[in-house]
Amino acid sequence: MGRVCLGMILSVDGYISDRDGKLGKLYESFEPNEVIQAEMAKTGAVVMGRNTFDMSEDPDAYADDYEFQVPLFILTHHPPANHPKENENLTITFVTDGIESAVHQAKQAAKEKDVVVLGADVGQQLLKANLADDLQVAFAPIILGQGVRLFDHLEELEIRLEKLRTIETAKQVEIWYRVMKEKKTTAEQVPLNSRVPVFNYCFPINLEKNNRKTKHIIPKRITPHCKE
Amino acid sequence: MGRVCLGMILSVDGYISDRDGKLGKLYESFEPNEVIQAEMAKTGAVVMGRNTFDMSEDPDAYADDYEFQVPLFILTHHPPANHPKENENLTITFVTDGIESAVHQAKQAAKEKDVVVLGADVGQQLLKANLADDLQVAFAPIILGQGVRLFDHLEELEIRLEKLRTIETAKQVEIWYRVMKEKKTTAEQVPLNSRVPVFNYCFPINLEKNNRKTKHIIPKRITPHCKE
Repeated sequence: MGRVCLGMILSVDGYISDRDGKLGKLYESFEPNEVIQAEMAKTGAVVMGRNTFDMSEDPDAYADDYEFQVPLFILTHHPPANHPKENENLTITFVTDGIESAVHQAKQAAKEKDVVVLGADVGQQLLKANLADDLQVAFAPIILGQGVRLFDHLEELEIRLEKLRTIETAKQVEIWYRVMKEKKTTAEQVPLNSRVPVFNYCFPINLEKNNRKTKHIIPKRITPHCKE
Repeated sequence: MGRVCLGMILSVDGYISDRDGKLGKLYESFEPNEVIQAEMAKTGAVVMGRNTFDMSEDPDAYADDYEFQVPLFILTHHPPANHPKENENLTITFVTDGIESAVHQAKQAAKEKDVVVLGADVGQQLLKANLADDLQVAFAPIILGQGVRLFDHLEELEIRLEKLRTIETAKQVEIWYRVMKEKKTTAEQVPLNSRVPVFNYCFPINLEKNNRKTKHIIPKRITPHCKE
């Protein structure tokens, strides 16, 4: 069975579209590369929300031109009256009974290949349902200030990730993570002296030593490699 | 004159502290490295907000133990009654007349070295005042769901960045950007066919060609390197 990957291009401040609902400022810095193309070839089905689907002015254009010529599963409460055009590779299924059903159907359709999930709302539903195996975020070099945030309405969650790899192109940085399937971390895992303002240098290494101190919480400098 | 750099460790969803106001989950994945240590050695002064400053239980601990043994400028409306301990390298100045004044004083103190700015609220003030030269974001492998966002309350802004370099450690990815000193992009810069749902593959290259189309907005596949 393939993996379920939530993948999006984000601004540095976490938006997947700008204040006008457009993607151009995020995509203009994108460059194809071999790793991404290889990942794309491993995609066997796509799940997206209705907002994302409707970004195409012409729904028949998916069959003609969409990058992913695979079965598409569109999560919506209201399927359109006219079913969009399909072809032998790209079928379009409107799913009305929730994210679990959409992902289940997509995994069946993808067989051994991966399922790609697109969209903020659908992405949030995926994370809340603990159905994401991988997370891929590509940071475009812009602060948008307003727009749709990918990571929003996730107050209930705290999700640890494992960095798998980083792909740097001329303008963007794309990071692939594995989603660790534990939803909450426990208080015991938080270092005792974690409330320390530092830039990000030479700090956490000495946590154990500092945890034995009680007088104050700022750690001493750690290694001779650090600025003296 | 040195540069003014806003630098923080963020969760993948953009938080600089967790739901309990703590930093441990962000810092436990940090590793020192030569580039960061070299940058630290170039720091001549630090500007931080009062919230950040107060993360130390004992304000005298800065002089004893803080990583940056340089002049500190603390932006606050209410300086403490007792001035904290200082030493020959680390002085502490409480600045009550705004971010411009704090940055100005810090630049004077830093001489040719750089000014590091820490904190969400102060960082937002810095960006709004167009005083940031560089932005450094280190992404820790966690989704926190709640906390203090670095990039918040910036609705008025849209800031283009130029990626300078990326530093990958075992668990974090740190990206350095130059802040482009133009606050708004114009509508003309947005590609016409930017409202297209794609993962992030093989897409924007063909914008020019597609801008000449009128029938629909999904671009055709671009190069033979892309998945066919």
